[in-house]
Parts: sequence; C-alpha cells; structure tokens
Amino acid sequence: MAQSTYVADRVGVVGLGLMGGSFAKAEHEGGREVYAWNRTHATVELAEIETIDGELTNDVIPTCELIILAGYPQVSIDWLQKMADLISPGAIVIDTVGVKRVICEKCFAIAEGHDWTFVGCHPMAGTQYSGFAHSRANMFHGAPMVVVPPQMDDFDRAGVLERLKHLLEPCGFGSFTLSTAAFHDEQIAYTSQLAHVVSNAYVKSPATQSHKGFSAGSYKDLTRVARLNAPMWRELFLDNADNLSREIGTLIDNLQQYKDAIDARDGQRLEALLAEGDRLKKEAERR
Amino acid sequence: MAQSTYVADRVGVVGLGLMGGSFAKAEHEGGREVYAWNRTHATVELAEIETIDGELTNDVIPTCELIILAGYPQVSIDWLQKMADLISPGAIVIDTVGVKRVICEKCFAIAEGHDWTFVGCHPMAGTQYSGFAHSRANMFHGAPMVVVPPQMDDFDRAGVLERLKHLLEPCGFGSFTLSTAAFHDEQIAYTSQLAHVVSNAYVKSPATQSHKGFSAGSYKDLTRVARLNAPMWRELFLDNADNLSREIGTLIDNLQQYKDAIDARDGQRLEALLAEGDRLKKEAERR
Repeated sequence: MAQSTYVADRVGVVGLGLMGGSFAKAEHEGGREVYAWNRTHATVELAEIETIDGELTNDVIPTCELIILAGYPQVSIDWLQKMADLISPGAIVIDTVGVKRVICEKCFAIAEGHDWTFVGCHPMAGTQYSGFAHSRANMFHGAPMVVVPPQMDDFDRAGVLERLKHLLEPCGFGSFTLSTAAFHDEQIAYTSQLAHVVSNAYVKSPATQSHKGFSAGSYKDLTRVARLNAPMWRELFLDNADNLSREIGTLIDNLQQYKDAIDARDGQRLEALLAEGDRLKKEAERR
Repeated sequence: MAQSTYVADRVGVVGLGLMGGSFAKAEHEGGREVYAWNRTHATVELAEIETIDGELTNDVIPTCELIILAGYPQVSIDWLQKMADLISPGAIVIDTVGVKRVICEKCFAIAEGHDWTFVGCHPMAGTQYSGFAHSRANMFHGAPMVVVPPQMDDFDRAGVLERLKHLLEPCGFGSFTLSTAAFHDEQIAYTSQLAHVVSNAYVKSPATQSHKGFSAGSYKDLTRVARLNAPMWRELFLDNADNLSREIGTLIDNLQQYKDAIDARDGQRLEALLAEGDRLKKEAERR
C-alpha cells in the first residue's frame, strides 16, 4: 500500500446542502478539522465563518482521512472520478445518497486500483426542508446509518467499519447496519420513497385547500413530507424505479380493497381489512 | 319553555372511552361536577375513584346542564332516544362522533318537541389507542372543535354557542368551527378517514416486517395511525362511505400517475408531479 498522506481525523465534505452541512457542523462541533467544497462558492464562504476550517482545495484533498460526498448523486460521482488520484492511500470515502445500487456500482469501480476505500452510506435522517440553512449539528443524533461495504465478508476484518465509526463519532448515529446495496434499495423504496410519494400525492385532493379547522394529527403526519425537493427526489426515484414502482403498485392494490369493501357497504370485509393492518403494524413494532 | 331542572355547569358523560374519559377528566379537573354512564359498569366504578362525582342515573340526568354523548354512534342515539324525556329544558346535548350526517339527522329528530338543544360536535383530537385507560384531561388542549348546530342561521343568536363554549372551557379547545354536517363529512373523509385508511394499507407491504434499521421519520409518520380500533372505524367509514370512497379513488388515481411516470422513466413528468405536490402543500400551509 502506498504511503498515507492524510492528517488523522481530518474531514472533507463535498457539497454543503442539508446533509453535508449537518456532517460539517457535527464534525466541527466534535473538534474535528473540516474542509468543504460546494458547487455554489458563496455557501463555502458562509460556512467558513463558523462551520469549517477552510475550502477543500486540491491541496487539501490528500490530507483528509475521511471524505464525505454529500451532493447529488451525479455530482458526487463526477467529483470522485476527477479527484480519485488526489485522495490519500488509506483514506475512507463515503457518500450519503438515498439509493445505493447505482452510486455504489460506480464508486466501487472508481475506487478499483486505488489504495483508499469507498463505502456506500445512507444516514437515515433529514427534514422536509433542504439546503445548508436547515442543516444542524444534531441532525444524526440517534439516527440509523446504513453502510454498504465493497465486500460484505471482508469488511469487518479489514477494520474499516471501526475506523468509520470513530470518524463519524461526533455525528452520534444510533446504529450502523451493514447491508448490500440491493437490500437497502428494496427497504428504502418502502420506508422512505413510498412515504414521500404518498404524502405528495395526498395533498392533491381538492379538500387540501379547505381543511382549516377540520384537521388534527393524522392529516399533519400524513402530509408532512409532501414538501420536498422535486429535482433531488426525481433522481432518487428513477435510480430505484423497479422497487418503488412495485411498492406503489402494492399500495394501490391494497387501497382498492378498502374502496371495494366501502363501495359494497361490506362492513365485515372492511373490518377484517382494518384489523389485519392493525395486527401487521403491531407485529412490526414488536420486532 | 318548560322550567329548567339542571344544576348550572353540571356535566353528564355517556360512554367512558378515550373521548368520554378525556371530557370527564378535563371537566372534573376544571372543577365541574361530572356524572357518567358506561356500558361496562366496572369502568364507571374505576372512574368514580378520582374522575367523576357519581353515576349518571335517571335521577341525575335531569340535573345536568350539559350531556356529552361519547359512545359509539348507535349507542349514543339509543341512549338519547330512551332518555329524551328526562333531559332538562334548556340543557345542551352534544355528541363526539367523527362523522356527522347520520348522527345529527337522528339526534336533531329526537330533539324535536323537547326544550333542550342537540348540537353535533367533533373534537379533532385523539390517539391511535382507545379506551378509558388512554384518556387524559389535556386531550383537547389547543385542538379544533367542529360544531354542527341545528340551524346555521339561528344558532349564534340563541346564545347556545356561547354557553357551550363556557361549559367546555376546562377542555381548552383551540378553536370552534361552525359547519354543516355535510361539509364536515366531506372534510373529515379527507383529513382523518383517508389518513387512517392509507396508514392501515401502507403496512401491508411485505417490507413492513423487515425494515428495522432502514427507517426514519417519514415511515414512522405515515404508519402511526395504522393501529386502530377496527369495529369503531368500520362504523365511521360506512356512515361516510360516499365521501371516503371518492377520496380513496382520488388518491389511487394520483398514485397511479407517479407509478406511470416512474415505469416510463419519464423524469420530467415525475418532477412536475412532485413539484405540484410541494406547491399545493405550501399553499395549504399558508391558509
């Protein structure tokens, strides 16, 4: 392995949006040195005031032990492709993209022939708002972190996971779950992507604009993530089209069953459908 | 008008479930005298320890200024039919049922020829749990209260609304919205009933049982009300079948549009759908 050139615990952040900004703030508050790059340079200048130690220039890249790719998928891939030769041997590069098959395949390929390691990551946190202005140091406190290693078998043995956990300590993740990219994408299509589609579709009823005084917690919860960053989710959804389409289809089929029972005024069937959902949710809560 | 026999501010509660228990606790903590009836007598005995002043017997009914029908719709209607002649002239009777056309029609009819007033009510609060054990005095703090008067025009003039607000003061409702039963049922089909159907249907994906470590806030919010009291919601859904069926149909149609765009890998169409949902939610928040 070639000689490492990184400074221990120094962190580079590529993209200062909601995620990148939160990583930068958490690591900085945790006493780590943080350098950042952003497509819009004004954000870097803003962050330099109290969040980061400087700009992630070509001179600084080889000195980072951890590099966090926190931009849009294609921006992250392009950056890694361009900077691959500058990254220090022994360094760890992670991304934060919400779907993992596409980005992992590309970044694992870029990493081939280099002595640094790419690890796919998906921090399971966020808000319905985007951008550096909404980022915060405690964004990841207690949140699950999904980790997609290059090889499932060899990963623990090489000690990369332990180093990654140490490097991300200031973020305060609640758990680290190892997964293949394929299994991650199946799960996420359901837990996150479908939730955003449903919430976004929910508000398209004409009743949305006249409900004031007629709503409580259930409406609020169902529509919280209707607000979303459309260009970003478009990209994430299309990179996971097979899984997401299947989940939407499953939900449509299930909703149709309730509608059929209601249209037929079939109380027994309707109650059975409701009781089954209640039972499945209870079962999931016990796991 | 016949002579009133009620004691000022004395409250009768019919049904000590989640709603009735919460009304009883709030009114009692607010210093009001509270008498209650429940189908299962053991609950009344339990409540008598620290929540109510006694049982709502036939002797006590004529002494209540406010009677709150907080049981299942049919139980409430049956009780009112049976006790109509015992209720004091000038008293106010409200219900708490989540759909208003059916119960209001029946209870307005029962009230005809009596000198007390029936007012349909829907307190927009609750939890995914049911029963007296989950009731609490602060259940209605800040919650909207929808009020369906016998006649929209004459109601304010007769001063009934002001008296009702005074009687319910200990509950701390955030607002009182006057509505017809028909408009209420349209709105509630969307804000509450559809939310419960979607949440209950959502957990029927096979992924529900394997998502541990792969979920965050959006899954939690979307599935919170999947847990529900199936026999109760069955009755509420069937009493609002026309409106609820229409809302489910609207949502299915909208979900299908996202699925079609995803299946066609039509990024532009998909982004337009997402941006439209974002815009509509933002617009609704401003109202």
